Amino acid sequence: MSAYWCELAWLGGEAAEKGVVIGVEGETIASVEAGVDAAPAGAEVLAGLTLPGLANAHSHAFQRAMRGRTHSGRGDFWTWREEMYLVAEPLDPDNYLALARATFAEMALAGITVAGEFHYVHHRSGGSPYEDPNAMGLAVIEAARQVGIRLTLIDACYLHGGIGAEPEPGQRRFCDTDAEAWAERVSALEDGPSTRIGAAIHSVRAVDPKSAATVAAWDPARPLHAHISEQPAENEACLAAHGATPSAVLAEAGAVREGFTAVHATHISDSDFELLGEGSVCLCPTTERDLADGVGLARLLADAGARLCTGSDSNSLIDPLEEARAIELDERLASGIRGQHSAAELMAAATSGGHAALGWPEGGRLEAGAPADLVTIGLDGVALAGTTPDHALASVLFAASPTNVRKVIVGGKVIVSDGQHTTIDVARELAESIGALTS
Amino acid sequence: MSAYWCELAWLGGEAAEKGVVIGVEGETIASVEAGVDAAPAGAEVLAGLTLPGLANAHSHAFQRAMRGRTHSGRGDFWTWREEMYLVAEPLDPDNYLALARATFAEMALAGITVAGEFHYVHHRSGGSPYEDPNAMGLAVIEAARQVGIRLTLIDACYLHGGIGAEPEPGQRRFCDTDAEAWAERVSALEDGPSTRIGAAIHSVRAVDPKSAATVAAWDPARPLHAHISEQPAENEACLAAHGATPSAVLAEAGAVREGFTAVHATHISDSDFELLGEGSVCLCPTTERDLADGVGLARLLADAGARLCTGSDSNSLIDPLEEARAIELDERLASGIRGQHSAAELMAAATSGGHAALGWPEGGRLEAGAPADLVTIGLDGVALAGTTPDHALASVLFAASPTNVRKVIVGGKVIVSDGQHTTIDVARELAESIGALTS
Repeated sequence: MSAYWCELAWLGGEAAEKGVVIGVEGETIASVEAGVDAAPAGAEVLAGLTLPGLANAHSHAFQRAMRGRTHSGRGDFWTWREEMYLVAEPLDPDNYLALARATFAEMALAGITVAGEFHYVHHRSGGSPYEDPNAMGLAVIEAARQVGIRLTLIDACYLHGGIGAEPEPGQRRFCDTDAEAWAERVSALEDGPSTRIGAAIHSVRAVDPKSAATVAAWDPARPLHAHISEQPAENEACLAAHGATPSAVLAEAGAVREGFTAVHATHISDSDFELLGEGSVCLCPTTERDLADGVGLARLLADAGARLCTGSDSNSLIDPLEEARAIELDERLASGIRGQHSAAELMAAATSGGHAALGWPEGGRLEAGAPADLVTIGLDGVALAGTTPDHALASVLFAASPTNVRKVIVGGKVIVSDGQHTTIDVARELAESIGALTS
Repeated sequence: MSAYWCELAWLGGEAAEKGVVIGVEGETIASVEAGVDAAPAGAEVLAGLTLPGLANAHSHAFQRAMRGRTHSGRGDFWTWREEMYLVAEPLDPDNYLALARATFAEMALAGITVAGEFHYVHHRSGGSPYEDPNAMGLAVIEAARQVGIRLTLIDACYLHGGIGAEPEPGQRRFCDTDAEAWAERVSALEDGPSTRIGAAIHSVRAVDPKSAATVAAWDPARPLHAHISEQPAENEACLAAHGATPSAVLAEAGAVREGFTAVHATHISDSDFELLGEGSVCLCPTTERDLADGVGLARLLADAGARLCTGSDSNSLIDPLEEARAIELDERLASGIRGQHSAAELMAAATSGGHAALGWPEGGRLEAGAPADLVTIGLDGVALAGTTPDHALASVLFAASPTNVRKVIVGGKVIVSDGQHTTIDVARELAESIGALTS
């Protein structure tokens, strides 16, 4: 049994608590006690604000290689997608392991203790399967294991190049023959101590309703994610083909079930709120800014019952606190009203909300029985200087960046100390792995 | 004569140049030569991307004390303004010097070499003048001098509590008796080696048209700024009182003249574009997000001829690259189109655009004759790892943060080295100066 004494810790309330002793037994939190004025003998001091581990509920790790490279000229989501296919083209299990390892390590430095990798780069460039058809997914799993973060591999069924369309050449490696082949392949993946397997319907663009029903029914106990209504053109095509919104098509296919997470949900219809209010909604605001997606209606979704969470998605930035505050700030831009979401609600999205969406409902909280996943934010840096215990939660939510993350503990094990990964030179590995793909 | 060899430097083009030698004579750039493969003997090596000094064209330094403190509950711009008045209340020349010094030092760490302080906290709390009626402005000037950055003190005329309304108690210290009294007071302020004096009409809310004309005519060679159409309610009140938009009222008063900068210009009318296209427009996107102001029409303003620049305004964040990219990213959210502004255009807003708006038209550029104001961004950190010389400008614009700023030189003098201010412990001074005001 070890113990930490947190100068401040967030236990889920509207503000941080002072003097919180967290007892850890193996990989699990055994006890939490607030209001302890000084560190007990033998307890390690965590100066600053300690949070539960942050969850990144939606990532495409390989897109980290695109950062800073797609901003020339004009265009929209669809022209960006063509550039993305070019980056995916040279991936193989070896270079993807290296890139995902560096990207997940960047996530660890930002306080992320569990990532959801929405995985669709399954097969060889061109479309033929690897000898082990899960070679790419296993590379992603191994990358997270080496970094020391938890991973939910959300293996995405991807069949079509658009509604009723054959896959384009750049999409072929994403595609299984049909939903049954997807299910057979994914059934060979196994949970591990820090790994859980989830399913995804890529979108109504890439999966027809009958196939979506197969994916939804594959293992109803597992998380099920889908991109929904990221762009108006998706809605228009779906309405034209099926006479219903993407949310309604997926609900009809049985996908909007326990464990369902709608990713983006930017352009949803009034009738979709009730459907999506049953589950989780993953907003990816920095990507939605980058891809000119628009501002979603997070407040109305939350009011409808949806549990919010966030994702770094395209990894054009990796900053889970920026994602959380951007839910609020972008909604302010669209509505003219401040305080749509409290700091505690936004922090819940970044922690417990994301854990729930990724199939780790016991995580994202500092309480007895939860996994011992802790993130300590230093309050002594320039950006946060001047805050007080009463305001620390809001200061961190609205002004912290990854460089303020001092310590990250996953399952009782320290993986980031003094702001550095304990075993990985993250910047060097990012430069090398991206250089190998793009040179 | 000293020389720097920049691994990469941005000379105004669409991408950075490699191997740039910058010769400095005293406080001025004497020569710039690109394509020099290795550092000449005696030249100091600047690894990374070197930019001209960044300009922060609109700041209210004291609002740094509000960071993280105004996010509870709901509300809008107008409820936020009440909280702001409470923070302004205890300011005096001594504690404002301390707070402004710490805040300007945070700006220096972020790469800002010239700030425009839109200054309206002129008098004692309650409204009576200090013995030297410019005591507060002189404190701001002294703060910037101690930090080593250039300052334009934009002294703002503030007369009314709203159109036709007496000042509220919290506004009295902002107010001069009338525009003539403002002009007499401001005429006692003098330019210095690193200081220039500008004028401002706070807004059509605080200055009537006749008084605005007096301010506009005070010294036509100096910069003139005004808050314009930050909120729809301002437009409505202005139309009701004057039958014209704020832009048109100020144009009629002669304010939209050479050297004019419209701050925000978020909610302008079609007829305002031509007026504002004659001058500068200062966008403050992180504040406009925070205060739920909305997304301006920066592309249309630029197309109308306006020179864009940016400001940290409320200082809820101090990150001039985030301001620059947010012009683009927020416009993407509103328009659904990427690439509204090129990386070079956005960097120009953060550099030469801001310098021009602040009355330093010779600055914000790396060329012979310009002031020797340089900012070097390290490319070896995690956020920028994987970029290339061709993409460095866009990578920095879209993914760098203040912690990537390695070196800042103003007038040939190093003020930030290895990411630290050479003489000021910025975090400690922020904590102390804010603590003194808010405890």
